[in-house]
Amino acid sequence: MLIVADNLQIMNPGIDRAVEMEDPEPIRVLVKKCIAAGAEAIDINSGPLKRNPEAKMRFLVEAVQSATDRPILLDTANPAALAAGLTACRNPAVINGFSLEPQKIAQILPLAREFDADIIGYILSEDSQVPTDESECFNIATALLAACQSAGVNPKRLIIDPVVAPVMWENGTAHNLSVLSLLRHLPELLGMPVRTIAGVSNLTTGPGPLSVKRTVEQSFLAMLAAAGLSMALVNALHPGTVKTARACSALLNPEIFSWAELE
Amino acid sequence: MLIVADNLQIMNPGIDRAVEMEDPEPIRVLVKKCIAAGAEAIDINSGPLKRNPEAKMRFLVEAVQSATDRPILLDTANPAALAAGLTACRNPAVINGFSLEPQKIAQILPLAREFDADIIGYILSEDSQVPTDESECFNIATALLAACQSAGVNPKRLIIDPVVAPVMWENGTAHNLSVLSLLRHLPELLGMPVRTIAGVSNLTTGPGPLSVKRTVEQSFLAMLAAAGLSMALVNALHPGTVKTARACSALLNPEIFSWAELE
Repeated sequence: MLIVADNLQIMNPGIDRAVEMEDPEPIRVLVKKCIAAGAEAIDINSGPLKRNPEAKMRFLVEAVQSATDRPILLDTANPAALAAGLTACRNPAVINGFSLEPQKIAQILPLAREFDADIIGYILSEDSQVPTDESECFNIATALLAACQSAGVNPKRLIIDPVVAPVMWENGTAHNLSVLSLLRHLPELLGMPVRTIAGVSNLTTGPGPLSVKRTVEQSFLAMLAAAGLSMALVNALHPGTVKTARACSALLNPEIFSWAELE
Repeated sequence: MLIVADNLQIMNPGIDRAVEMEDPEPIRVLVKKCIAAGAEAIDINSGPLKRNPEAKMRFLVEAVQSATDRPILLDTANPAALAAGLTACRNPAVINGFSLEPQKIAQILPLAREFDADIIGYILSEDSQVPTDESECFNIATALLAACQSAGVNPKRLIIDPVVAPVMWENGTAHNLSVLSLLRHLPELLGMPVRTIAGVSNLTTGPGPLSVKRTVEQSFLAMLAAAGLSMALVNALHPGTVKTARACSALLNPEIFSWAELE
């Protein structure tokens, strides 16, 4: 299971300032910290990027790839920013991402073909709502694959994000049980192996005691891993979470077990 | 998921001494500590009990039930000790346990009928070896159920223990993946819901860094929980493990989620 850092967010005032000032250093420092902590890929969560989206995403991509050659996830709904970021990106690139929303199918999905990049497809309805039952999740997964095929995107480029819900949502835990079931059944459903990603921090959004939040996140991360998750989007600076992700990978590898790799 | 404390072991010199001196106090103190820490049942691991097995098991059961009215697991391979313990036990009792070994079928399994008690059946071969492949696990589960039926034991009394292997065993992680698969498929395989139990401390037997051991145990506990485990046999005095078990129960309950219960 690949550990993807969710730490690089423009909502973080230090990062926002660095982007405004065009100072790559705070971004480089954060990225290096995440990599040292165990991150194997970096998600650039740039938000909608109202002003100068292209220049800003280009700057963010350049800053990150000056600090690491690991894969970069370009996490924005802005197609122009995505295209600029993908043009600048020399590291392996992942578009994060598209959904069945017509505007996303029209403007974001074609970028995966144009740039021969991986692309994340969210299990969300056409109006970007979290589906309420398991069969709807399954239908959306099938529709995401069909959308890739229609757009001429190699299905192997698709990474499915089943969209973990906050536990505090009214049907949050019920939805998250559907997420586990979807992950287990996806290869059979789609008739091929497919990579998957899930954002674990999302689980504990909102108020709640911090130490219990970490336990809840780590427990669900292990459940996701056992259900077949390929990529875990986590706060790489939570040592317990990274340790859990590594322990899960070791437990799910039928080959040799080594404590040394887990310390 | 019920939290069963594995802490009461006669291998612990303090407990061994208490049994020899017929002093219930150290046992009562330990049991109360485990219950306060979150244990919902107590496993009495008395070992083979070479001398005075009946008197010793009776003493252990009396000591435990003077401290709690929670279920007691009688964990010995000695049929005479089991019968004496079951006779003395007023709390809900669980025989821990039997396997396909002919001597166990002949002498231990009938006690479940005689005392109308729950009984744990281990997924072990007839010569008490851990099975090497998944289909063997499935066959043994079916044979355990058939053995109950032949002995006139109500199949609802059966609790299956898929036997978690130490990760350091040559095929330990491969076997443990079979354990997860078995847990997921048992209801379908046996054509009925069946309770299950697993000993999590067993996973990290042997040398290894302590803090990583806890992470490995907790990660696998979450995987077991998501696979449907009913009872987790754990060290109840490891706070992180109890917290994980509770977080798992909350995550797997499709009803309301409450942080308050997890603190």
